[in-house]
Amino acid sequence: MRDRKRPPAPDAAGTPEFPTRRAILGSALSLAGGVVAIGAGRGAAGQDAPAVVPPWTREQGAAITSPPYGLPSPFEKGVVRKPRTPPPVPTAASSGTPLQHLHGIITPNGLHYERHHAGVPAIDPDQHRLIVHGLVDRPLLFTMDDILRFPSVSRIHFLECSGNTPGWSGAKESWTAQETHGLLSCCEWTGVALSTLLDQVGGRPEARWILAEGADAAAMSRSVPIEKALDDAILAYAQNGERLRPEQGYPLRLVLPGYEGNMSIKWLRRLKLGDQPFQTREETSKYTDLMPDGRARQFTFVMEAKSVITFPSGGQALREPGFYEISGLAWSGHGSIRRVEISTDGGRSWREAQLQDPILPKCLTRFRLPWTWDGGPAVLQSRATDDTGYVQPQRAALIEARGLNSGYHFNGIQSWRVQPGGAVSNVV
Amino acid sequence: MRDRKRPPAPDAAGTPEFPTRRAILGSALSLAGGVVAIGAGRGAAGQDAPAVVPPWTREQGAAITSPPYGLPSPFEKGVVRKPRTPPPVPTAASSGTPLQHLHGIITPNGLHYERHHAGVPAIDPDQHRLIVHGLVDRPLLFTMDDILRFPSVSRIHFLECSGNTPGWSGAKESWTAQETHGLLSCCEWTGVALSTLLDQVGGRPEARWILAEGADAAAMSRSVPIEKALDDAILAYAQNGERLRPEQGYPLRLVLPGYEGNMSIKWLRRLKLGDQPFQTREETSKYTDLMPDGRARQFTFVMEAKSVITFPSGGQALREPGFYEISGLAWSGHGSIRRVEISTDGGRSWREAQLQDPILPKCLTRFRLPWTWDGGPAVLQSRATDDTGYVQPQRAALIEARGLNSGYHFNGIQSWRVQPGGAVSNVV
Repeated sequence: MRDRKRPPAPDAAGTPEFPTRRAILGSALSLAGGVVAIGAGRGAAGQDAPAVVPPWTREQGAAITSPPYGLPSPFEKGVVRKPRTPPPVPTAASSGTPLQHLHGIITPNGLHYERHHAGVPAIDPDQHRLIVHGLVDRPLLFTMDDILRFPSVSRIHFLECSGNTPGWSGAKESWTAQETHGLLSCCEWTGVALSTLLDQVGGRPEARWILAEGADAAAMSRSVPIEKALDDAILAYAQNGERLRPEQGYPLRLVLPGYEGNMSIKWLRRLKLGDQPFQTREETSKYTDLMPDGRARQFTFVMEAKSVITFPSGGQALREPGFYEISGLAWSGHGSIRRVEISTDGGRSWREAQLQDPILPKCLTRFRLPWTWDGGPAVLQSRATDDTGYVQPQRAALIEARGLNSGYHFNGIQSWRVQPGGAVSNVV
Repeated sequence: MRDRKRPPAPDAAGTPEFPTRRAILGSALSLAGGVVAIGAGRGAAGQDAPAVVPPWTREQGAAITSPPYGLPSPFEKGVVRKPRTPPPVPTAASSGTPLQHLHGIITPNGLHYERHHAGVPAIDPDQHRLIVHGLVDRPLLFTMDDILRFPSVSRIHFLECSGNTPGWSGAKESWTAQETHGLLSCCEWTGVALSTLLDQVGGRPEARWILAEGADAAAMSRSVPIEKALDDAILAYAQNGERLRPEQGYPLRLVLPGYEGNMSIKWLRRLKLGDQPFQTREETSKYTDLMPDGRARQFTFVMEAKSVITFPSGGQALREPGFYEISGLAWSGHGSIRRVEISTDGGRSWREAQLQDPILPKCLTRFRLPWTWDGGPAVLQSRATDDTGYVQPQRAALIEARGLNSGYHFNGIQSWRVQPGGAVSNVV
C-alpha cells in the first residue's frame, strides 16, 4: 500500500508537519466542483460556512429507521442482483452480484450472488435436521440447536460459481462486470468446523469421501474428499454476522473454501461417509470440463487464481481525461494473492498494483493502481499471481490448453476497452 | 486458536488419519437429537437416506429472490435493531445492534446501530457537496463524483457510541447484550483517506484542528485533532461493499477509527481547518465526562479496551448442563486486542480465551472458550487487554476513578449471571 499511515513528522516545535504536497494526485486530478467563494452564512458552530444550506439541513430527518432492519438509500435502487440469461426452468436460475458498484472485499448479504438448482426452499430451522451416517461409528441426527452448541469458527472467504465468467465463447460487448464476473461474492462465514463434527460421529479409517446433500427439491449432492473435510470445511449457519440468507442455504450450508461454489451445498441435510466418490448427477452430467479430445476433466474442485478490474469496467464511462484509480478484485482457491499486475495497453506493459490488507487465504483481495487517462483508446487488464506462484493466463493460452467445449472454470485475463469518448466496454 | 487446521496425518498407506477421538468436546456435549436408525429411503444419489423427506424437498422452491435486494429469513424476524429508552424528542434517538444474535465480527448493514441528533436526512447524492475551507491554501467544494475520483482505502473498524453500556447506574437485570452493549457495530469502510483530501486543499502549518459538520438538521459538529486527520481518518462512502446506508451518513461520513462514534460525523458537508478546537455544543454541553470533583474531562476521544460475552448473555437460557462455547467480542480504540480472559466464577479465576484471526487494529475481535456448565450458579465475565498493555477494569475500580456523574465511556467488565435453571441475566 502507499504510505497512507505515515505518522505525522514533528517539526521543531513538536507539532506535526502539515502536508501541502500533492504527491499522490499531482495536478492530474480534475476537481470539477472547483473552488468556491465562502459565503457569509453561519454554521452551527458559529463558524463561517457556505451560504447555501441544503434543504435536508433545514428540517428534522426521519427518526429511528423503520422497519428496524435497514435497507439501502432509494438513490441506490439500481444496485441489485441481476438474473443471468433465462434458465431452462424458472427455479434453476442464477443472479449476479453488481461488482462494478461495490467497494472493498465484503459483499453485503442482500447482494450475494445466487445459484439454485430447484429454487429456494423456505425451511423452518426448528424442523431442519442434519444426518451424518455411512462409514461412521455413530450415525447421528443433529438439530440446529445441536449444531449451535459446537465450538465455532469464523472465516472470510469468497464463493465463486464454476460457471462464472462465460469467457469461452459468446461474450457480448455490452457486458458489465456483473455479467462477466458477478457469480462471485465474499462474506465472513461462521459455523462449525466439519472436522469437529466428524470427531463426534467417529469416521472409520476406510472413509475417503463424503456425500453432501441439500434439502432443496434438487437434493443437490456432491462428493467431498475427506482431506478437504478435515482441512478447512465449515458447516456454516451465519454470513456477515447474521444467520444465512434463505438463498444462501438457511439454516445450514457447507462452505468449502476455494472450491467451486456448487460444492458448498446449501440447505445441508445429509452427510454420508463412503470409500469412493458417489458419482452424483452434479459431478457426472454436470460440473465436469469437456476437453478438446472429448474426455472430461472430473473433480476440478479448486477455483484457480483470477482477477477482474471493477473500475473502470464495462458499462461505465470516464467523464474526461485525467486522474483515475483503477480498482478491482483478485482471488485464488489455492491460497492468498501475492501480486496483481495491471496493463492499460492490452498486455504490452504491466505495472504492479497495490494490495489492500488484510490479504487473506481463499478470500477476495482488493487491488488499486493510480492511472492518468490521456483521453485516448486503452485496453485495461489485470493479472493475478497467487502464493503458489500460479499466474492467471491470457484467454488465448487458456483456450489453447482447454479448447472451447467447456462452460466452466474460465479464469482468463479480462479485458475492458476504453474508447476515446470515455465509454468502457467488454472486449469480445 | 485451537488446532482446527491440523493437516491430516498420513498413515503408512499414505492416506490421512481419520479422527475418531472426541478430544475437543469429550463426552460433555449433549446431543439432544441423539442417534437415529437409518430408514429405507433412497436419496438423490441413490444412497441410503433418512426415511423422512422434509416437505421443502418435495416441491420446487422460490426462483431468484425478489425483490433483487435480499432480506433475512422470515424466521429471523426477531433479529432487528431495538430503540433505546424514549428520547427527549423523536429524532434524537438511538437503536442497538442485536449482538446476542450475531456471530463473527462483521455487522450486517441492516443491523448497524443508529444514533441520530436530528433524525436521518434523505440526501440526494448528486446534490450533496463537501466544502473544505479555513486555514487552507485552496478552499474547495467537492461533489460526490469528485470524492469518488480520489485514491481509496478500505478498513474494517468498529464504531461505538460513547454512551454505549449504561453501566454507571440504573442498569436493569432484564437487559440483553443489545441493551448493555448494542451501540457497537463493525463494518468494512471504504473511502478516501482524509490525508489525501488535505493534500489537495493545502492545509496551512498553523492548522491544528478540523471542524467536521454534518448536513443533518442538528448540523452535528465536532473538532478533530489534525494528528488524527493525518493518521487514519477516512471520508467513507461505502460500508461492507455497498454505499453507506442513510442512517450511517449516506452519501458521505467521516470515520475516525477508535474514537467515540459521534465524532465520525455523518452526512458530512463541511471541514474547516483552524488553530484550536471549535468548542461546539457537542463537545461542551455534551460528550464530556463529569468527574466527582465537578470538573469535566473534555476531548476523551478514544474508546478504551472493552469486551462483552454475547453467548451466554442476558435473556438467553442454557437448556441443560453440559458443553457450551462461551463467545464474545473485544475491542480497543488504541489498537489491537492482545488477550481476553474469561471467568465463570465472578472474577475469582480466569482462563485465556481463543482469539479468532484476523486480529485487526480498532476492530472487533471474536473470542471463544469451551466451557462445561455443571448446572450450578455461575457469573460470567470477560476481560480484554489491548496491545498497549491496558487491561479492562472491573466496574468498582472504574467507578472509584471516575465517580458516577458521567454517562459516557463506561468500559468496565460486564457480568452475566447463570442461574441453576439455566436462565441468564444482567448483574446489576
